[in-house]
Amino acid sequence: MTNIEPLKELLRIPSVSTVHQGIEECAEKVKEFLEEAGFETQIIETKGHPVVFGEKKGKTDKTLMFYDHYDVQPPDPLDEWESPPFEPEVRNNRLYARGVADNKGNLMARLEAVKSFDELPVTIKFVVEGEEEMGSPHLEGFVNDNKDLLKADGCIWEAGYKDVAGRPTMFLGAKGLCYVEFRVKGANRDLHSASAVIVESPVWRLVRALTSLKDENERILIEGFYDDVNPPDKEELDLVDTIPYNGDLTKKILGIDKFLLDISDKEAVSRILYASSCNICGIHAGYTGKGSKTVLPCKAMAKVDFRLVPDQDPEKVFNLLKAHLKKHGYSDIEVESMGPLWPAKTSFKERFVTVVKESMDAVYDKEAVVYPTMSGSGPMWLFTNVLNIPTVSIGVGDAESRAHSPNESINLTDYEEGTQVIKELINRF
Amino acid sequence: MTNIEPLKELLRIPSVSTVHQGIEECAEKVKEFLEEAGFETQIIETKGHPVVFGEKKGKTDKTLMFYDHYDVQPPDPLDEWESPPFEPEVRNNRLYARGVADNKGNLMARLEAVKSFDELPVTIKFVVEGEEEMGSPHLEGFVNDNKDLLKADGCIWEAGYKDVAGRPTMFLGAKGLCYVEFRVKGANRDLHSASAVIVESPVWRLVRALTSLKDENERILIEGFYDDVNPPDKEELDLVDTIPYNGDLTKKILGIDKFLLDISDKEAVSRILYASSCNICGIHAGYTGKGSKTVLPCKAMAKVDFRLVPDQDPEKVFNLLKAHLKKHGYSDIEVESMGPLWPAKTSFKERFVTVVKESMDAVYDKEAVVYPTMSGSGPMWLFTNVLNIPTVSIGVGDAESRAHSPNESINLTDYEEGTQVIKELINRF
Repeated sequence: MTNIEPLKELLRIPSVSTVHQGIEECAEKVKEFLEEAGFETQIIETKGHPVVFGEKKGKTDKTLMFYDHYDVQPPDPLDEWESPPFEPEVRNNRLYARGVADNKGNLMARLEAVKSFDELPVTIKFVVEGEEEMGSPHLEGFVNDNKDLLKADGCIWEAGYKDVAGRPTMFLGAKGLCYVEFRVKGANRDLHSASAVIVESPVWRLVRALTSLKDENERILIEGFYDDVNPPDKEELDLVDTIPYNGDLTKKILGIDKFLLDISDKEAVSRILYASSCNICGIHAGYTGKGSKTVLPCKAMAKVDFRLVPDQDPEKVFNLLKAHLKKHGYSDIEVESMGPLWPAKTSFKERFVTVVKESMDAVYDKEAVVYPTMSGSGPMWLFTNVLNIPTVSIGVGDAESRAHSPNESINLTDYEEGTQVIKELINRF
Repeated sequence: MTNIEPLKELLRIPSVSTVHQGIEECAEKVKEFLEEAGFETQIIETKGHPVVFGEKKGKTDKTLMFYDHYDVQPPDPLDEWESPPFEPEVRNNRLYARGVADNKGNLMARLEAVKSFDELPVTIKFVVEGEEEMGSPHLEGFVNDNKDLLKADGCIWEAGYKDVAGRPTMFLGAKGLCYVEFRVKGANRDLHSASAVIVESPVWRLVRALTSLKDENERILIEGFYDDVNPPDKEELDLVDTIPYNGDLTKKILGIDKFLLDISDKEAVSRILYASSCNICGIHAGYTGKGSKTVLPCKAMAKVDFRLVPDQDPEKVFNLLKAHLKKHGYSDIEVESMGPLWPAKTSFKERFVTVVKESMDAVYDKEAVVYPTMSGSGPMWLFTNVLNIPTVSIGVGDAESRAHSPNESINLTDYEEGTQVIKELINRF
């Protein structure tokens, strides 16, 4: 069995990037683990949190890279955790802790695999950043400044999850992301709500502005939003048709009766891979405590994320959003863009994709399912579009892993097998 | 000068009814003050917070009643207070504390006035409740159970404010209130926001449901909402035409460039007195902290108040709202009604109104302005409609009093003069 103690040690560090918690400590710990495994290691400063870089030479210069991140999502709501988020606990062969699936478990499974080689057949590089959960705002600068250091022939991306039927998955792309905070101001202070007959409410303005962004069929109403969408070709859609998907089981796990818009399983897969979205991550204004308070709030805010598909550009989308707000009379609404991410995609015809699949199929009892892209986002475009490295995302999570949610966990058997897959890949690469 | 020490003592008790804080202590303190002033006093239990009742016989049975409340609004946002809300502080001849304007300052000014009489010419009754800031949910039961005890020939209502030009005001009515909490549920947990392409968002449902309630011209779109509105007659509108109103000064104080819908001063007065409203007191969902968190929240909530005018019925409005939500496909949204209040109005032709005005004009250097009703709400309808007592609201606040907001205060000269007015009224009644 793979030793899980180093992983537990890493999970105990509450490296919540969005509140700048435990960052230096966690970066140092990753560096220490890499050095113990014989890597030449550097902590490379950025304008934000540092990147840990490690390189270990193999028999050839052919280079396999691992992209991971040592930061995690905030653990709240805390009261919904069955065990404390930063005190890893094993229950029923699952390891529970914030970040265990996304992405510390993957980082450590990869490192354990590398450690099992007395002599590496290929060169291995680790790039472990500390701002992925904030939208990787400084990784672009890091990549542009270190292009030589970052040369590689294939890259294994941060995370992956078995599907609801227990099939391992491979993801060959990621959506882009345009994350925006909206802020609206009203009077110079909260007022008695009797004033609402003569004083405009920033809450109503925010609610109406949000409503103007999307219709009831999920069509985003920002002018020009869909202009750059580059839909998949027939060959890719044929591959998508082979993806098995158990919608009923997904719905059961999520506790919902039907999918959004009551779509079929096939449409769900299509939307997961190819639909842009506009989601409200958070909204707040006024009094939200117990009982009633009759107040006209003086400010309101919301956080909204747009997921983007090839070839949408998050900076262009942000500008289109500003134009939309202006056009609809909401130019007083302040919008701030946070960490834009571009969509990324590696062709399923790449040899690297085939090798990764063979490595997985050698370990798992179920055949790996190839997804031409994924529903989530990340800085993968820096590796595919800027560094030109074929990139595939796989990992040790499953359909119960609850990434970004309370009670995040992985199955320890998946951790063991995920380590084996990386060993196979290093040998076959 | 009127002694302000008893008032400060009362203000130090944080009697925030909506969180059931300091209630018994404050009721006991009011009882103690009334007893010290020679009142026969009882603490009358209700299904909620108790009512303090006091009666002091005068030379005649003619009875003047004071309605007040010993509870206050929550003090938050706490960080916006210049001095702690429950540590009364005098700065520039103003007394600052939560509840000083709404309504402990009025209660104590009235009591100080009564105390100045060796022998009262009329009988005085005090009704001091502890749930006004929660919408007085149990006062109706109290009034129905104690109709004999509550007989009176005129009632002075809880609060009043000088206008922006420093003119004292009299309010002869109050709006009704239908306060509703909305709760929407989605998946069984918060999800990674990548799922937003296939899982319906309770936040979007809430935002859309709210948007469906009102159009951009402030017209409430709930079917039947306006059916029972009984508009004022010509004589009353002529009275309203005499009300002076300095819109520019109001806007300056509130820090706004223009009124809602860019209305004129005259329209503002009309809306203050006669417009129903639908206001979002608070809204919350998901992550609203620093930075970005990409989450699809599993629940969303909002608190909404509808202000109502004669003869709208808050229970009927709540039922119409439920029908509206059902009709628009939002029957899954849970709505809870909190403390309905009916609209109330005393005719400006009543003799009691004239006597109150004469008492005010005898004290203040500016003539009192008569408002046929007020923008705020309260349980006044129990006194006007159920007990049939002519009721007028006056008080010691001014345009800077910031009731319900941080840094609530009164001018100490207004406190002094407010006490004089009550003395005049007791003599003239």
